[in-house]
Amino acid sequence: MNTLGKNLVFTSFGESHGKAIGGVLDGVHAGLSIDMDMIREALDKRAGRSCKTMNATPLVRAEGMSPRAVRETDEVEWLSGVKDGLSLGTPIAFIIRNKDARPQDYEWLKENYRIGHADFTYQEKYGIRDHRGGGRASARETAARVVAGSIAHQLLLEKGIHIHAQLVQVGEETDSTKFNEYIADIQRHGDSIGGIVECRITGMPVGVGEPIFDKLQSHLAFAMMSINACKGFEYGSGFQHVGLKGSEMYLSDNSAWQTGGIAGGISDGKEIVFRCVFKPTATNRKTVAALDANAPVGRHDACIAVRAVAVVEAMAGLVIADLMQENDSQKEANG
Amino acid sequence: MNTLGKNLVFTSFGESHGKAIGGVLDGVHAGLSIDMDMIREALDKRAGRSCKTMNATPLVRAEGMSPRAVRETDEVEWLSGVKDGLSLGTPIAFIIRNKDARPQDYEWLKENYRIGHADFTYQEKYGIRDHRGGGRASARETAARVVAGSIAHQLLLEKGIHIHAQLVQVGEETDSTKFNEYIADIQRHGDSIGGIVECRITGMPVGVGEPIFDKLQSHLAFAMMSINACKGFEYGSGFQHVGLKGSEMYLSDNSAWQTGGIAGGISDGKEIVFRCVFKPTATNRKTVAALDANAPVGRHDACIAVRAVAVVEAMAGLVIADLMQENDSQKEANG
Amino acid sequence: MNTLGKNLVFTSFGESHGKAIGGVLDGVHAGLSIDMDMIREALDKRAGRSCKTMNATPLVRAEGMSPRAVRETDEVEWLSGVKDGLSLGTPIAFIIRNKDARPQDYEWLKENYRIGHADFTYQEKYGIRDHRGGGRASARETAARVVAGSIAHQLLLEKGIHIHAQLVQVGEETDSTKFNEYIADIQRHGDSIGGIVECRITGMPVGVGEPIFDKLQSHLAFAMMSINACKGFEYGSGFQHVGLKGSEMYLSDNSAWQTGGIAGGISDGKEIVFRCVFKPTATNRKTVAALDANAPVGRHDACIAVRAVAVVEAMAGLVIADLMQENDSQKEANG
Amino acid sequence: MNTLGKNLVFTSFGESHGKAIGGVLDGVHAGLSIDMDMIREALDKRAGRSCKTMNATPLVRAEGMSPRAVRETDEVEWLSGVKDGLSLGTPIAFIIRNKDARPQDYEWLKENYRIGHADFTYQEKYGIRDHRGGGRASARETAARVVAGSIAHQLLLEKGIHIHAQLVQVGEETDSTKFNEYIADIQRHGDSIGGIVECRITGMPVGVGEPIFDKLQSHLAFAMMSINACKGFEYGSGFQHVGLKGSEMYLSDNSAWQTGGIAGGISDGKEIVFRCVFKPTATNRKTVAALDANAPVGRHDACIAVRAVAVVEAMAGLVIADLMQENDSQKEANG
Repeated sequence: MNTLGKNLVFTSFGESHGKAIGGVLDGVHAGLSIDMDMIREALDKRAGRSCKTMNATPLVRAEGMSPRAVRETDEVEWLSGVKDGLSLGTPIAFIIRNKDARPQDYEWLKENYRIGHADFTYQEKYGIRDHRGGGRASARETAARVVAGSIAHQLLLEKGIHIHAQLVQVGEETDSTKFNEYIADIQRHGDSIGGIVECRITGMPVGVGEPIFDKLQSHLAFAMMSINACKGFEYGSGFQHVGLKGSEMYLSDNSAWQTGGIAGGISDGKEIVFRCVFKPTATNRKTVAALDANAPVGRHDACIAVRAVAVVEAMAGLVIADLMQENDSQKEANG
Repeated sequence: MNTLGKNLVFTSFGESHGKAIGGVLDGVHAGLSIDMDMIREALDKRAGRSCKTMNATPLVRAEGMSPRAVRETDEVEWLSGVKDGLSLGTPIAFIIRNKDARPQDYEWLKENYRIGHADFTYQEKYGIRDHRGGGRASARETAARVVAGSIAHQLLLEKGIHIHAQLVQVGEETDSTKFNEYIADIQRHGDSIGGIVECRITGMPVGVGEPIFDKLQSHLAFAMMSINACKGFEYGSGFQHVGLKGSEMYLSDNSAWQTGGIAGGISDGKEIVFRCVFKPTATNRKTVAALDANAPVGRHDACIAVRAVAVVEAMAGLVIADLMQENDSQKEANG
Repeated sequence: MNTLGKNLVFTSFGESHGKAIGGVLDGVHAGLSIDMDMIREALDKRAGRSCKTMNATPLVRAEGMSPRAVRETDEVEWLSGVKDGLSLGTPIAFIIRNKDARPQDYEWLKENYRIGHADFTYQEKYGIRDHRGGGRASARETAARVVAGSIAHQLLLEKGIHIHAQLVQVGEETDSTKFNEYIADIQRHGDSIGGIVECRITGMPVGVGEPIFDKLQSHLAFAMMSINACKGFEYGSGFQHVGLKGSEMYLSDNSAWQTGGIAGGISDGKEIVFRCVFKPTATNRKTVAALDANAPVGRHDACIAVRAVAVVEAMAGLVIADLMQENDSQKEANG
Repeated sequence: MNTLGKNLVFTSFGESHGKAIGGVLDGVHAGLSIDMDMIREALDKRAGRSCKTMNATPLVRAEGMSPRAVRETDEVEWLSGVKDGLSLGTPIAFIIRNKDARPQDYEWLKENYRIGHADFTYQEKYGIRDHRGGGRASARETAARVVAGSIAHQLLLEKGIHIHAQLVQVGEETDSTKFNEYIADIQRHGDSIGGIVECRITGMPVGVGEPIFDKLQSHLAFAMMSINACKGFEYGSGFQHVGLKGSEMYLSDNSAWQTGGIAGGISDGKEIVFRCVFKPTATNRKTVAALDANAPVGRHDACIAVRAVAVVEAMAGLVIADLMQENDSQKEANG
């Protein structure tokens, strides 16, 4: 299904080369003054156009991004739920029309499956697929998530909650000042590289998240793993825990160790910290040349994790805003 | 909420030192011959009593387990949904009574929060809690998951799907023949240690999992992150992807690289492989002695990941059986 | 599925002649002081033992009720979620053991389907069924609903909301003082008769219920139609509307006309009024004698609507309490 | 929330005088050849333009319909999920733009609540509303339901299931040949009148619907009560049951008595029959003149039940197609 959330419910639709992609966001209270600039900025960040994406270095945008990403402006058309800049409390529906459809680029895909893509599984599952640019499986769908996620973020800002994600590792490189150069080099060689995005959420009240199955970390992991190319999720010290002893964690002054702001599935009021790993994109000049010289290279990102930053923020916004409403309901019930 | 799943729906209830823990499993088709021995074995594995838990080495059971785990037999009382050993198609309800309640051990907790536990967040969220042994937050709740998960596993066996999890790392140790000695040593020092559990699912058909939000990996991550002490999830090559180039993944004979059996959120028919990391338990002789000499040490596991193996298998069973029914419905619709 | 509700979630389980029936009620806030007498009274009302059922006239109880109803005491065993009389905020699980199982009475049903019962559809759907007394389809299951509904009602009383249902028609009789005599007469003739139950909810705030699909009347109708033998639902003036002109409704002083306390799916702050019709039970002395002299008459109610009163109240309680939490969450978001 | 269904999921959006109304239908299998004429016809029926609506008598269309209904063509724009006339298995999103927005007609509503409308409850619940023509509460939203319902109907036709609704009572009149004259007379007097719509579903297999809470009649009632102006639902003999004795139902040749095609919440393979009552519209020339001579009459239907026929069919289609997928999944599991 293409719907996420319980109280704040987001439905996504659209194929990458169909008429439009879009979404319906249900559960936004009436009277929210929607900041269109914030949505614009989030979309730019996802498209690799924002100066904030990678520490204001423009190089990566020129070198490491898909040309389509730079060219398209992702104009949002609002269909319902907003009047005079204010939310109505009714479902907010919006679309982004697909402008750059060049179907001839994708003729080759009618009869071929790309490596590392979902072409095969979609074909097997549905017996039919829109082969153009991955169709529904394309990362273009994440633009709709970013619009909805930005509105969710605005709901959270009303309560003093901030979400900020950033790239913390590219290949073996962890020095953020060297990321641009690193990625540009990968791009020049026609290759691609993995990356890790870290997200921090500040201003969280205590008590968000449910014990047992609706743990805060469960919902965050669910949402992050739904992002294209994401292969792993961890919070706090995550996989580093395997090498830790209980005594080291709790008795020594081990500053590298983090709880991640969640205990028993419930926010503890501290900063929430989690990380996601993104694999290198499968389609790049090298792989295409090696596997089928006739195939079009198409458009590819040297490090998809760069643009995933905006999607991580969007999904975190949707999850936290959804669980906040659950928590509000409980607080009211508790009196 | 304490309910998981859409087509195969599991509801869990019970506090660790209340009358009973238990569950309701809804959506099991009528006529399944329920293998009680398989359920017994899964419970034994979770309790650290099974010879299969750690490569048939009994040492860990004696040294590294909570005495309660060894003593309790976790007898399952079936309340509904089963008649003459066959499922009726109606909700299967069961309980495991709590026998070993020694409330005096927990008096100390009435006024104190344990480090690394959910005592604080529960108290803040609910304003009331059953302080005895963690109450609802106790890992004892996972016994109900193991019962339900075993039934789910039996549903999958009917379709030729097998789930097998095992411990693959303890501390820095990755040689499984040395795990027992390693954990026994940790136990002797009154300390605790983290571990990684790997799970492999074989016999999967192509097409299980939904694109966008109900990706197979999203549901697996959700379920695994809901297990106590789990701090991270990855599938296929997971976090190793950060250091990989696209060309290395797809062009070289890099045998260490794994897709994990999922593409675009949908099973590709190959073996599914994922891993979870479990933190060291916070409560052990060392931490308790250092922080409050008056506090009871209670019962603790030197490496909780050992017993988590059975819970990982249970949760994987619930997730896969749930998504299989979704897929079956689609296949029928497709005709 | 056997689960109802979104914020206040009730799961029901149990066959009428299995070990026990029971339920799990999730979403009750912590700290509710549970009034066991109120639950007892609701169960007595359902069993036809309460003086409040039918205007304090004991005759119907003696004449018109199933002997099992009068005999069984429906003792509730609390398994979780309650400690020292207070809710813990965790799932409240409870069971009522089945004491009066006389399987020999039901041998006949192994090979036969009763008219007007679900024997045929269950057998076709599941290929297996617990034939004893209807198994899962038996109205005995509604005892679990009454327990959960009573707790829901207690949640509503905290907010000043009262629910009261009563029998308003039996056969053609609408004078409540004559119901007992009427039903006793039906009973003497070995027959059964239909009835209408009316429910009134007072103290409702404005704003409960959601537009479009989650209308207040939709949820009430869903819940009422799920009660055994219920064949119709209406609110306000209901089916009488067909004969009304718009001008009569709004311009004349037509005191018989009622809005029902809901506009656009949302409570308007006035009293909510709805009605449900219950068919006569199919199994009675006359039908059994005519169709198969060898079949056991079993136990039957002359007018099942009498006992349905308690179930209508229970289901209304669950629905309203569930939607109230939705509304609370929205108020908090708006506030 | 604005989403309905579990396996076939419909999300509705749009205000009556905003940019567009529309919907997203998720869960349609890939490869369905979508019959656009059938959708067109269903929309015409809803708009009162179809010859099939009322026995091919054009009078009612001219006399009894809102001018807007006759004028607007409800052109559907398909945004996603359909390619070359075939469904892709991805969410089908569509919009119908609002052409006839004359906001000046609704200025009066900014400061006033109409009787018998949801103006008051919306204002109270949301603190803001789109006052133009009822905004989200307007029956215009049902056009999106009709589009989605028609696709659902097409899914059912593949399985040999037909849905047909018709007007069976207007005011006190039950002779369908006199409906047109009756309604035209009401219209001439500037008044409005209630009506009853009956729906019959043929070709149903045995086994659709779930016991306990997801009974077939519960889902039908939920969906019907969500239609604007619907005040009651009954199936089979419905409210007539109150006057029936068990012996009359089962022993006599009472041809007026109907089971309705459902037993124990599950279809029994016979024709399903249910009825809904629709109240007279509150706004008509008489009520407006009497209550506020300055208010615009706007556009009103003399008997809204006429156009509700298409919406009843649409909602029945969505419900049955949704439950069919549930049943398919079970059959596969059992098979």
